[in-house]
Amino acid sequence: MINLSKKGKLLIAQGGGPTAVINQSLIGAVLEARKFPQVTKIYGALHGVTGILNEDFIDLTQETTQNLESVASTPSSGLFSTRDKPDGQYCIDMFNIMKAHDIRYFFYIGGNDSADTVRIVNEKAAEENYELRSIHIPKTIDNDLRVNDHCPGYGSAARFVTQAFMGINLDLNSLPGVYIGIVMGRHSGFLTAAASMAKKYPDDGPHLIYLPERPFTIDKFLSDVKETYEKYGKCIIAVSEGICDEGGETITAKLCECVERDSHGNVQLSGSGSLGDMLSKEIKEKLGIKRVRSDTFGYLQRSFMGCVSDTDQREAREVGEKAAQFALWQNVDGSVTIHRTGTYSVDYRLSKLGDVAKYTKSMPDNFINDTCNGVTSDFREYCLPLIGSNMPEAFRLRAPKVEKILYK
Amino acid sequence: MINLSKKGKLLIAQGGGPTAVINQSLIGAVLEARKFPQVTKIYGALHGVTGILNEDFIDLTQETTQNLESVASTPSSGLFSTRDKPDGQYCIDMFNIMKAHDIRYFFYIGGNDSADTVRIVNEKAAEENYELRSIHIPKTIDNDLRVNDHCPGYGSAARFVTQAFMGINLDLNSLPGVYIGIVMGRHSGFLTAAASMAKKYPDDGPHLIYLPERPFTIDKFLSDVKETYEKYGKCIIAVSEGICDEGGETITAKLCECVERDSHGNVQLSGSGSLGDMLSKEIKEKLGIKRVRSDTFGYLQRSFMGCVSDTDQREAREVGEKAAQFALWQNVDGSVTIHRTGTYSVDYRLSKLGDVAKYTKSMPDNFINDTCNGVTSDFREYCLPLIGSNMPEAFRLRAPKVEKILYK
Repeated sequence: MINLSKKGKLLIAQGGGPTAVINQSLIGAVLEARKFPQVTKIYGALHGVTGILNEDFIDLTQETTQNLESVASTPSSGLFSTRDKPDGQYCIDMFNIMKAHDIRYFFYIGGNDSADTVRIVNEKAAEENYELRSIHIPKTIDNDLRVNDHCPGYGSAARFVTQAFMGINLDLNSLPGVYIGIVMGRHSGFLTAAASMAKKYPDDGPHLIYLPERPFTIDKFLSDVKETYEKYGKCIIAVSEGICDEGGETITAKLCECVERDSHGNVQLSGSGSLGDMLSKEIKEKLGIKRVRSDTFGYLQRSFMGCVSDTDQREAREVGEKAAQFALWQNVDGSVTIHRTGTYSVDYRLSKLGDVAKYTKSMPDNFINDTCNGVTSDFREYCLPLIGSNMPEAFRLRAPKVEKILYK
Repeated sequence: MINLSKKGKLLIAQGGGPTAVINQSLIGAVLEARKFPQVTKIYGALHGVTGILNEDFIDLTQETTQNLESVASTPSSGLFSTRDKPDGQYCIDMFNIMKAHDIRYFFYIGGNDSADTVRIVNEKAAEENYELRSIHIPKTIDNDLRVNDHCPGYGSAARFVTQAFMGINLDLNSLPGVYIGIVMGRHSGFLTAAASMAKKYPDDGPHLIYLPERPFTIDKFLSDVKETYEKYGKCIIAVSEGICDEGGETITAKLCECVERDSHGNVQLSGSGSLGDMLSKEIKEKLGIKRVRSDTFGYLQRSFMGCVSDTDQREAREVGEKAAQFALWQNVDGSVTIHRTGTYSVDYRLSKLGDVAKYTKSMPDNFINDTCNGVTSDFREYCLPLIGSNMPEAFRLRAPKVEKILYK
């Protein structure tokens, strides 16, 4: 806390893949910042850093509170997004645009790349003695930001994955077979692991969960599936899209090579269904099981309308508000981080941008079982509050069997 | 109305693919039938007709009302299902089992195949002068049962598809490109058409909808996509899994043949992601658009937990209750059918089994646009009440642009 923060405009933007609650953070920051007289106007940059570079701003101080609240509960990025990852020069160009508009507060909602962008812009401002408060606001369905206990966006995506596997359990009870659900998460398995929250009855799936944190071999996979199928007469599997072999090469990449070798001409198979289709084919051919189905959850899991965790919603709102409070009451830079206290509450802190930026976090060892094909109760305890309250529940008939007359 | 119906047991079973509300019909029938003293017991057959053949029954009169209600709101078939389509002999064997247990009422919840099973069992009973009341209770997410205005199960699946495309609209606004969602419905396009309910803003998708009712050609498809992409800078497409060429061959089958010709040995590509992947590849290669994504909604759309239409839930319950009332008050056989009256209410009738059985219904011409790549307002008016109330809504920021300083 040095001195009262400088009078000027606030610029906010959103980067990376959308989440169900990223607009809660946006609106939390905007409404909180409006309470401070130092903030002369609040601009939103369209399409993240691209919009900053193109000077493509909208004036959020001319939005109604009603509409801001309506957008808050709308999934995906209200200010639109970008996949641009700025290098040094890009950040310098952005900084010059900000200076021209007398931007004194810069908030960027995103993952580890966004945190790194904020870090570089911040360094540039310090070099030039330009008074700028830069705050990174966390979001990612992958849940892979360091320092944070968990990330806004994860809980709602995890809830989608849970509800999906709950339904799959019911579907496979009804018509048994093998089911493979491919879940997002290139480098960390948190989202795939959330499938485990769908279990209620002892024979419920997912029976097997494969994460990018552990090497995947097709032989071990097939023997796991065989064992489960023999035990339960069904097998439900959650697979991360990012599973890798011992050497760290993704199974999807290996598969594509294989298909290229087998086909004529320039045909290249790299569509989103390929991993699930390949694993299904292996099971059908090697284990002789007929009913094998796979779904790739794809974009549904990150933007499905009407599936949101209330915990996630609340916390996404709060990290936005805290960004404004850190910048304006305390006049400091950093990344807003979430820290779990007790079961279950959270505190928010401002962490160093460098501690959150660039690198990602993987599932800790105590969340993954010893046989590398499932999660532990530690993980389930961790995940339970994040997927929120009022989870729908599955029930089964418990009526007694009728004694046979003809076939007894 | 001949005479008071005969004293005896009631047997109920569920067939075909699960829906979100099929257990409402089960529980509606069970609870209503319990009010009639002629019904001595209510048995449930496990796994549809297979369970009847195997004499695999549970005694539903020993269930608590609490648990029956809990199961009612659980998706998928509480009595489990089957894909068996009984022929004449199978039906005769089933009938003999029923006779042994003094079954005097037989209710089968399912699609057109299930209606046909009920029809054959019913004929057999009449031949033998065995007093049996057989009722078919409708369900199918495909919405393709004749006589019915619409089918229980459709509304909830249509709601899932709507909510999915609402999210996709938001996702593609944020990160533009081309998106293809593959929706279930082998012979009729009702479920795919429901994607149109996701439109709110003028540039919202789906911009293109391809149904099995109209021939699909890849050239027309590519020219449609190109035109849309040039107009909006994005293109969102709903495609039925059952799309066919001019000759009636499914595009998926054509695709599989093609891959078989290209590959060595017995490799066969028939995984669920293949149609979407193939269409994506065509767009990337022929139109040079980089960001093309496809999702195959697969099993999520029919069993996702927590996505249900209240209209659908209510009606599914009522067709079950009406089955009991027709069989027990009126002592007649048939298929319970739904008929729309006004905007919006329904009446239930008992139709002839032969009118509902075997054949399926397609989308009527006035629901499909002239360019064969979308639906009409007639369809949207038809579909609106079916997807239920309290639909989540998407909102956009409407803040004015900020005048440029550097790049003006």
